[in-house]
Amino acid sequence: MTLPDLALPQAAQDLLFRQARTANTFTDEPVTPDEIRAVYDLVKFGPTAMNSQPLRITLVETAEARERLLPHMAEGNRAKTAKAPLVAILAADADFHENLPTVFPHAPGIRDMLHGQEDSRTSMAALNSGLQIGYFIIGVRAAGLYAGPMTGFDGAGIDAEFHTGTSKKTLVVVNIGHPAEDSWFDRLPRLDDADVITVV
Amino acid sequence: MTLPDLALPQAAQDLLFRQARTANTFTDEPVTPDEIRAVYDLVKFGPTAMNSQPLRITLVETAEARERLLPHMAEGNRAKTAKAPLVAILAADADFHENLPTVFPHAPGIRDMLHGQEDSRTSMAALNSGLQIGYFIIGVRAAGLYAGPMTGFDGAGIDAEFHTGTSKKTLVVVNIGHPAEDSWFDRLPRLDDADVITVV
Repeated sequence: MTLPDLALPQAAQDLLFRQARTANTFTDEPVTPDEIRAVYDLVKFGPTAMNSQPLRITLVETAEARERLLPHMAEGNRAKTAKAPLVAILAADADFHENLPTVFPHAPGIRDMLHGQEDSRTSMAALNSGLQIGYFIIGVRAAGLYAGPMTGFDGAGIDAEFHTGTSKKTLVVVNIGHPAEDSWFDRLPRLDDADVITVV
Repeated sequence: MTLPDLALPQAAQDLLFRQARTANTFTDEPVTPDEIRAVYDLVKFGPTAMNSQPLRITLVETAEARERLLPHMAEGNRAKTAKAPLVAILAADADFHENLPTVFPHAPGIRDMLHGQEDSRTSMAALNSGLQIGYFIIGVRAAGLYAGPMTGFDGAGIDAEFHTGTSKKTLVVVNIGHPAEDSWFDRLPRLDDADVITVV
């Protein structure tokens, strides 16, 4: 089956999806917080429900902070997280509603309405942060960097260590850098469109 | 503050993020399932935990199926969902573990281990489908199409109508097409990086 061409040029498709890979080992070349601010400056435009933008990013830059993070990572993720040039903790902030008067100004009262609905806010924050984590991973690749996203960690432990006094809940931790040789395994199989897409 | 340039060319940044907008009204130009299969053929390469790929897509193509969807949409989303050239129901499949022997073959036994852990699977499916919905929205834009993602609907109603007998849970419904004039509102403000990024 021949599918229609996309508008996005092939080189950009390759950079973001087709040749992009999850990296497990990195060179010593550093990654600066400003490089991640440049990523954010692009992916912040990705849509979220009610423009809620619940994603929060903690960049673990100092050696001291890295030492505090490592014990909370799953054992299989600890060595690579120790060596990555920069590590980003990606979290959902259930207190996103505090920003709604600014970011969603045409719905006055929505902040106060959501104030007492913590369960709703938690699930809204998780879903929309999930979308934003998708945008963020694409954005890391758009910067020419490589991401190693991980979900194997003790999230409550990370939250107690880095998010105390807030409503942030860690969803994904991402190692970021330039890939070393043999940074990834062979590409794993993707599902056929017939297994994913139903037409009704 | 001047931020570092990204590797992705400016025109691609514009197409995917900077000039891309959420569309509310569309021209009559149709969108075919094959155009969405081409989107999937790109975004399927986006990473998910354990390569789990829990996102499932139901394309509502026939008028009869559209009529079954509309009553479950929030009132404010009904008219635009009625008129969009194509509508995609994006759902998380908590039965993703059935595919793991194929898509994550180096961890034998993981399917059986997850079999009895429905709560874990449900939250894994939601998080990773969230990432994949982020990839999908970027992919719709990569195809030169415009997306109108919505979370205002009765998810249980949509699932009873379209996902009966499965473990699929609707997360986002997306209108897809070519934008009509005045298809969007003015861009809403995004959070400053200082409100999102913490460096430790």
